[in-house]
Amino acid sequence: MIGGGFMGRTHSNAYNQVSHFFPELAYRPVLQAVCTRSADKVRAFADQWGYQATETDWRALLRRDDIDAVDICTPNDTHAEIAIAAAEAGKMILCEKPLSRTLAEGHRMVEAVERAGVPNTVWYNYRRLPAVTLAKQLVDAGKLGRIYHYRANFLQDWTINADLPQGGTGLWRMDVDAAGSGVTGDLLAHCIDTAMWLNGAIRDVSAVTETFVKERMHQLTGKVQPVGIDDACIFHCHFENGSLGLFESTRYARGHKALYTFEINGEHASIRWDLHDLNRLEYFDHRDESVVRGWRSIHVTDGDQPYMNKWWVPGLGIGYEHSFIHQVADFLKGLETGQSAAPTFRDALQTQKVCQAVLDSAAARSWKDTGVEGKVG
Amino acid sequence: MIGGGFMGRTHSNAYNQVSHFFPELAYRPVLQAVCTRSADKVRAFADQWGYQATETDWRALLRRDDIDAVDICTPNDTHAEIAIAAAEAGKMILCEKPLSRTLAEGHRMVEAVERAGVPNTVWYNYRRLPAVTLAKQLVDAGKLGRIYHYRANFLQDWTINADLPQGGTGLWRMDVDAAGSGVTGDLLAHCIDTAMWLNGAIRDVSAVTETFVKERMHQLTGKVQPVGIDDACIFHCHFENGSLGLFESTRYARGHKALYTFEINGEHASIRWDLHDLNRLEYFDHRDESVVRGWRSIHVTDGDQPYMNKWWVPGLGIGYEHSFIHQVADFLKGLETGQSAAPTFRDALQTQKVCQAVLDSAAARSWKDTGVEGKVG
Amino acid sequence: MIGGGFMGRTHSNAYNQVSHFFPELAYRPVLQAVCTRSADKVRAFADQWGYQATETDWRALLRRDDIDAVDICTPNDTHAEIAIAAAEAGKMILCEKPLSRTLAEGHRMVEAVERAGVPNTVWYNYRRLPAVTLAKQLVDAGKLGRIYHYRANFLQDWTINADLPQGGTGLWRMDVDAAGSGVTGDLLAHCIDTAMWLNGAIRDVSAVTETFVKERMHQLTGKVQPVGIDDACIFHCHFENGSLGLFESTRYARGHKALYTFEINGEHASIRWDLHDLNRLEYFDHRDESVVRGWRSIHVTDGDQPYMNKWWVPGLGIGYEHSFIHQVADFLKGLETGQSAAPTFRDALQTQKVCQAVLDSAAARSWKDTGVEGKVG
Amino acid sequence: MIGGGFMGRTHSNAYNQVSHFFPELAYRPVLQAVCTRSADKVRAFADQWGYQATETDWRALLRRDDIDAVDICTPNDTHAEIAIAAAEAGKMILCEKPLSRTLAEGHRMVEAVERAGVPNTVWYNYRRLPAVTLAKQLVDAGKLGRIYHYRANFLQDWTINADLPQGGTGLWRMDVDAAGSGVTGDLLAHCIDTAMWLNGAIRDVSAVTETFVKERMHQLTGKVQPVGIDDACIFHCHFENGSLGLFESTRYARGHKALYTFEINGEHASIRWDLHDLNRLEYFDHRDESVVRGWRSIHVTDGDQPYMNKWWVPGLGIGYEHSFIHQVADFLKGLETGQSAAPTFRDALQTQKVCQAVLDSAAARSWKDTGVEGKVG
Repeated sequence: MIGGGFMGRTHSNAYNQVSHFFPELAYRPVLQAVCTRSADKVRAFADQWGYQATETDWRALLRRDDIDAVDICTPNDTHAEIAIAAAEAGKMILCEKPLSRTLAEGHRMVEAVERAGVPNTVWYNYRRLPAVTLAKQLVDAGKLGRIYHYRANFLQDWTINADLPQGGTGLWRMDVDAAGSGVTGDLLAHCIDTAMWLNGAIRDVSAVTETFVKERMHQLTGKVQPVGIDDACIFHCHFENGSLGLFESTRYARGHKALYTFEINGEHASIRWDLHDLNRLEYFDHRDESVVRGWRSIHVTDGDQPYMNKWWVPGLGIGYEHSFIHQVADFLKGLETGQSAAPTFRDALQTQKVCQAVLDSAAARSWKDTGVEGKVG
Repeated sequence: MIGGGFMGRTHSNAYNQVSHFFPELAYRPVLQAVCTRSADKVRAFADQWGYQATETDWRALLRRDDIDAVDICTPNDTHAEIAIAAAEAGKMILCEKPLSRTLAEGHRMVEAVERAGVPNTVWYNYRRLPAVTLAKQLVDAGKLGRIYHYRANFLQDWTINADLPQGGTGLWRMDVDAAGSGVTGDLLAHCIDTAMWLNGAIRDVSAVTETFVKERMHQLTGKVQPVGIDDACIFHCHFENGSLGLFESTRYARGHKALYTFEINGEHASIRWDLHDLNRLEYFDHRDESVVRGWRSIHVTDGDQPYMNKWWVPGLGIGYEHSFIHQVADFLKGLETGQSAAPTFRDALQTQKVCQAVLDSAAARSWKDTGVEGKVG
Repeated sequence: MIGGGFMGRTHSNAYNQVSHFFPELAYRPVLQAVCTRSADKVRAFADQWGYQATETDWRALLRRDDIDAVDICTPNDTHAEIAIAAAEAGKMILCEKPLSRTLAEGHRMVEAVERAGVPNTVWYNYRRLPAVTLAKQLVDAGKLGRIYHYRANFLQDWTINADLPQGGTGLWRMDVDAAGSGVTGDLLAHCIDTAMWLNGAIRDVSAVTETFVKERMHQLTGKVQPVGIDDACIFHCHFENGSLGLFESTRYARGHKALYTFEINGEHASIRWDLHDLNRLEYFDHRDESVVRGWRSIHVTDGDQPYMNKWWVPGLGIGYEHSFIHQVADFLKGLETGQSAAPTFRDALQTQKVCQAVLDSAAARSWKDTGVEGKVG
Repeated sequence: MIGGGFMGRTHSNAYNQVSHFFPELAYRPVLQAVCTRSADKVRAFADQWGYQATETDWRALLRRDDIDAVDICTPNDTHAEIAIAAAEAGKMILCEKPLSRTLAEGHRMVEAVERAGVPNTVWYNYRRLPAVTLAKQLVDAGKLGRIYHYRANFLQDWTINADLPQGGTGLWRMDVDAAGSGVTGDLLAHCIDTAMWLNGAIRDVSAVTETFVKERMHQLTGKVQPVGIDDACIFHCHFENGSLGLFESTRYARGHKALYTFEINGEHASIRWDLHDLNRLEYFDHRDESVVRGWRSIHVTDGDQPYMNKWWVPGLGIGYEHSFIHQVADFLKGLETGQSAAPTFRDALQTQKVCQAVLDSAAARSWKDTGVEGKVG
């Protein structure tokens, strides 16, 4: 584990929990070592989460023989360097999303892991919430028929205050150099990942971005500096299957803490989901008898629904953190079968291509092709 | 029309509207005359609603030859006297609910209309909201299978303020002499009417009532007097079909303006409804495929759903007032066929019996039989 | 009244109802005459709605001296000709939306009514739903602070069936010659009207449209012909106040009968609304105490909320048709004060400009300026 | 840990997780040993959850010196014997709810732990869901003013199938000898615990119970035998503070997997909560400005809301299992301060008294006093 921030916690929890709830797996993660830059912090983190050793230099971590897999939870600007070195060191890699700051970095990372032949995955965790996985099953089973529309948004409101600084501890997501972009890479990347998994390749995009607060004090320099990230991003697009897509993300939607929603409208049926009520999937089937036709509110907590035979009993919900536990479980199962669990670095690169096209489109005020084709894993 | 208050308005609107939306009916109401005690008020009311004549003495109204039907919208303490006189005068009668203050009055009223052989109905209007009528159709079609549970409540919050006076204009519902009871006759009577229509006879009841504000100024006397009505009433019961019932009503449920809800749980399916979102019926069918099973939110606005072919297009809702229009339409259709539209005075008497048993049970702190049996119309 | 279709019914109902619920108005509409092309149909319509005379030629109607105001409820391709003639005849005009098929027609219509000096309005009725008017009051009172985002959609699903014909009776909305456009003029026009009323001018747009079913049988010709209308339309935009807008409309969103929703996100507060639950407004105020902060579900049925002192009591909802009654009431009040009730033809022309820019943008795959500036009435 | 069923899993998870999320606690649980009757099963369970040793005889477990605390997760008919023995052995005790099958057992258990002076608690876990704890804080802060109404229900539907057997593995809750009662002890006990914690003592009750399926095959005997448990239970009651209570529980409410809801109506404000959307609390405050007054939907995931500074970031929900983690955390904190975490055995005995009065009332068809008085911890 490299990094001890918010994502370091979610992943550490997943490694601890997976064996309790997926005892049948052949592999069990061992929390060998954690690395953060601060010696004090890394000890406390290791103690809290049960890591057996600590490092303060990630290169040292990569040199250790007792490490089989590396989890990269550091800011976006370090993903490429660490991942490439880890691949060269022959480690399996689990990398936080987005894959990289830039498309160029992403390409090099994919090359590195594929050349090294190491199992790899990127933490687009929302796929593994049971309701979202159920959506995937329904789409793949053809229940929706031809798809006409896909829409998604990810709305937050935590940066409205103009006095919030940018950059530095806890706020690197506000700093374009560390993050690569604003809501596009942080939030829309999740929406794009889910969308292409459910509905196939996004072919072209037309986007607009906005930075509402133009200058903020930078925590590292202490100076008021221009804000380089996008505060909000909207785009529409064509999917390869002919459906229209509509995506929006912002950190200026007062009242929404983390409203990730998506909806798919098909010829026969529609599906929608909302992160604020994450155990529920809504489903409308036009083939239902007409007088009793309506959106069904499915509480996805039954044993025959994805992942839920591992948890409690019908009606008793799980939370956000469980998406990470499921991803570790699928990754470990992938090791048994020899198949990397999706999304791999290559899959995540497709999302990166769309993100880049979105940013380019917004800058050029014109449509951009994404270059993505075919099935996205 | 006798009475020019809130209910006078809802009924007058219904008489005006029915011909616009049910043009196929053989009979069309003519607004011949309206009667209220105040000469000024009655003129304004007649002018607003299109009545051709006015009276200030209901006996004078009953003596008119140009009147075929009488609508009684006066406080509860006058229902019996007016209805019996109207029956004797050979008029059709449409009487506001509850039928009467007391069971004894109710018996005399039923006798009067049946002896006179005049068409008669009581304004338990909620039955005629499309979503509620759809519930009836689903129950009657056997979709629910054996019924286990029926629960309903009617919650309001308008009398919490202890400074609100009792009795007099606009507040006769607070005066036990005028109203007969508090929430039991005013609100629970609606719930009981719907319940027995949907689920059959209520056999016995165990109730509790409460008067939270014990004394209020009486508008007519100007004095602070004990409050005689029930502010809140709860009861559970057995239906004849073996299901359990649970009913609650209060005017002290902060946050609920007029929350009338009911839910029925059957072996195969369940139904629930809420007056605050009156165009919607929720329906759960256990026979749906398990992974996509959930409560369906049915927006009851399609042409194949009850009454809705008379209104707009799918998705465009109607309101509270439409329940009255539908009741007039059904009453007029009943005249064509010679069948009084339910609920008749006799049907409403069954509801009255349950209300009486509820009040008696609360007073005696023991179970009481209702004496109701068989199908309630 | 010219036209006896769906909108002819909603408007006729409004004229009948307004005097019952707004008795204080100085003017009361008299249903003098109705005109449709079919002699049989027009008689039945007049009889149902209480019109005193009938015509089958709208020019004859305009020649009548006993007519002060003309209501245009015919297909879009007739609006310009009738409205201009009516203006020349000195009649007040109430015209169905959209104002016109094309911007050129719209300009000529505005000129005509302004030259004639006749009171005029366009039936963008949704503004007058109490919850929507309340939203306007909250925005105008500054409760939201600086606005960051406006999003709206209008989703339907009634044309998914590829066997549905285009054009002719009941289906002129599917025929580009009669309608001018598809969802853009029919549905998005409503969203744009509300948006500019609430949030000011839309400055530029970037749009995409799609026609999913490329050919349909035309009812008038009996032949399979290319479909000229847009089945779906999405656009994003900048408002003059710096906020971002996002709009979507389609008739291919399975499960949505008529889902018109909008949401506004401001610095301090946010608002959202949904036509399927039209009596409710949701409101989030960040200034609420933090631990009990949340979206408020406001049931807009109290006497101190817009228009609701005219109707029933708190908790008892109204429906779609009431928006038209309120618009007539405001129009009549405008006659008293000498001020045309918004939206006037000139206001509706601004919406038309945005619609045109949207269609142009989609065709050209590029951003388009709308030319709209300043406050929209 | 004694018992390796469903509750054994929830508690074991809590012991594992508490140190990860509450690292500041002075005490950390060590999973010393687990005991179940089957030697095979106990080894697998220990391996899965990290217990260091196993036992198949709970008396052996109690004899171990390396055990400080005992967790009782066995069927209800064993609680008293084990708890009393554990108290005599000087162990701290965490006992599954309900405390006991009968009131007599409960009294002996309370005596035993109080005589031994051992820290003790009963797993009424729902109190520790953040939204429920927030409700407690709001009530205690006086935000609601005088309370008028409390209503709660716990609805399930898993025993509707008449072919489901009773008794034996996984089904002891259906066997009156093992469980003591049906829904009253299993589900209503939760509702009663929360209710008295939030709203004080329940003074008297009037109840009805029903057993819809009268006979079921017993798994242990292989014979069809009368069903002794209550399938459904409804009661109303008076709280000591003068408010009315209404409670319902059933396993025959088709469509409800585990619908635990409660609502409190006070003079100034109301609160409601629903287990199916457990991160949310709804709150209505009459003191809000009238035109924007409505139920607030509070997503209880912010750092200033109960327990949530231990988890993720605003908007990201937690699940059912977290209630147990919180209870362990509070228990461990109680050890630091020397105060047993509520509910203690004595607190749980008050709930037991109400359950007993409910069952007695249903049997006698009359009101019963509970004997509970004063504040319930």
